[in-house]
Amino acid sequence: MQEALNIGIVGATGAVGQEILRCLELLDFPIKKLLLMASARSKGKRFCTKWGEFQVENAHDADFQGLDIVFFSAGKDTSLALAQKALHAGAYVIDNTSAFRMQANTALVVPEVNAHEIPKKPSLIANPNCSTIQLVLALKAIHDAAGLRSVRVATYQSCSGAGQKGIDALIDETKTALNGTRLSDSTVHARGIAFDVVPQIGAFLSDGYSEEELKMIQETQKILALPELAISATCVRVPVLRGHSEAVFVTTRKKLSTQEAKNILANAKGLVLSDLNDPSQYPTATQADGKLQSYVGRVRQDYADPNGICFWLVSDNLLKGAALNAVQIAQYLLNLNPST
Amino acid sequence: MQEALNIGIVGATGAVGQEILRCLELLDFPIKKLLLMASARSKGKRFCTKWGEFQVENAHDADFQGLDIVFFSAGKDTSLALAQKALHAGAYVIDNTSAFRMQANTALVVPEVNAHEIPKKPSLIANPNCSTIQLVLALKAIHDAAGLRSVRVATYQSCSGAGQKGIDALIDETKTALNGTRLSDSTVHARGIAFDVVPQIGAFLSDGYSEEELKMIQETQKILALPELAISATCVRVPVLRGHSEAVFVTTRKKLSTQEAKNILANAKGLVLSDLNDPSQYPTATQADGKLQSYVGRVRQDYADPNGICFWLVSDNLLKGAALNAVQIAQYLLNLNPST
Repeated sequence: MQEALNIGIVGATGAVGQEILRCLELLDFPIKKLLLMASARSKGKRFCTKWGEFQVENAHDADFQGLDIVFFSAGKDTSLALAQKALHAGAYVIDNTSAFRMQANTALVVPEVNAHEIPKKPSLIANPNCSTIQLVLALKAIHDAAGLRSVRVATYQSCSGAGQKGIDALIDETKTALNGTRLSDSTVHARGIAFDVVPQIGAFLSDGYSEEELKMIQETQKILALPELAISATCVRVPVLRGHSEAVFVTTRKKLSTQEAKNILANAKGLVLSDLNDPSQYPTATQADGKLQSYVGRVRQDYADPNGICFWLVSDNLLKGAALNAVQIAQYLLNLNPST
Repeated sequence: MQEALNIGIVGATGAVGQEILRCLELLDFPIKKLLLMASARSKGKRFCTKWGEFQVENAHDADFQGLDIVFFSAGKDTSLALAQKALHAGAYVIDNTSAFRMQANTALVVPEVNAHEIPKKPSLIANPNCSTIQLVLALKAIHDAAGLRSVRVATYQSCSGAGQKGIDALIDETKTALNGTRLSDSTVHARGIAFDVVPQIGAFLSDGYSEEELKMIQETQKILALPELAISATCVRVPVLRGHSEAVFVTTRKKLSTQEAKNILANAKGLVLSDLNDPSQYPTATQADGKLQSYVGRVRQDYADPNGICFWLVSDNLLKGAALNAVQIAQYLLNLNPST
């Protein structure tokens, strides 16, 4: 029997913060006290939850004392400014930003893959990048069964990956385009996203990769504890509201038949193989919208390599790709610390 | 000095047929007589061209006698039914459908790559699949410089690849979605395409590949004359009106630096390297719309393989991906037969 915990959410009014709240409700998380925090602008906003009505506090003035777990999803700068304060107050921090993910002493966790890395004492746990989380669910299962040799992924990432403003930009720009006007280049998605796909998420680095691509590469290596894994990514924003899709090409040390690869992915924790018996039942982003599971389909031999397999991965980027994964980490903490 | 030719277009009222007409005008093709043909439904429609006004004839009743070149873009069945008749009348046939592409004795031509395969006497020349044409422009240059070992491609193909009905479906479904209604699964694009991406173009084969993916694989091998090339594709329809994008991953026998790969692609026939001096100038589909060139960008090392390079390819699928390539083949015929 677990006791209820005191939970804080920094960035509670944002797209991911709202999903964290929804996931806590959905997974029936035992909560004693809930502290909703956001920027000064959102101070005083009220939210009705299953644990009562709460008023949003300014995160910069908030008192973290007594909190067991604080979720951060208000951007890198806020995490850099306030995470230490929450840690000093004795709370676990589950940080949804990229601020600490690649620090050597920070656990970067997808519970289905590396829950064993969750620290036993209050500390900061980083929640990985959205496009990485769904990828490692599949890669972990394949690596355990056949040994990963290389990974290539081309992504089809939805506009909600850039938050509510990303969704709004897609809708506004699409309406404008349908009215026959072509918008000038957008600042939200690097380029106008209406009826186009944009191969840039984040700034470009000196090697020609984008920040998002580097995150996918480095975070995948870290979560799988395969720092030398040969992996590349091309990350592309697409005019989809919610749900990230990925075309994945892997090679393995042990050759897998298509049927073996399907069995491995069908049994991977957190994944559902959609089209096992009917090839037309592959998953898409709109289908995954609002779902707690991630989906895989189109599993087949990759003719580019004798030991190659390719497949199609889809997940709700705001749920498993962000809020749900964070809440699943919190569920582990709950079990670690039943008497907190 | 070339003499003018007698030209026929079967499927003249369709999306590609109209672009063939536009390309003939744009490239100032010398035309003596123009015969526009389509289905019985379009008989009598009139089109103004730079060579005068023409009335569409029913292709099934048309007389091909005296024509030098007949373009076919009215679907596989029409080509199967009428191409022989045009050949018997002594014309070259440039066929834009998949009906004859993989026949051993049929030339499958992208002029920048294998113009030498264009037959010297009237016969049928197949125009490749849209997503294949832009790919082989890049692959040919890389193969000549460094020897291709493997190719993986994930596509982002626009709705115009399914013709005018594909464009109409995207616009109608998007308007419906913006009004808050979710359409039932579409029959035009396998699934509803509004704010989603669909990893299916054509029916699925027994190995799990789609027809479009098989076309890309087989046609690339044939055009490059590399029947054993290790190549795979994941073909995806995206909510873009016009212009196909491709995330390409290649490995080569000779290792290429990023700079060497950029030089090779910058000098590839038919390709423009968009972002040579500024990484933010990568090409996108809406930019390529209406352009005669194909575009490449985001050239960089593929960390999945020591000899890997990846890049981003964009082309107007109705122009270089269809009509323009066909008219470029016709230009070669013009030079072959100056006195026809």
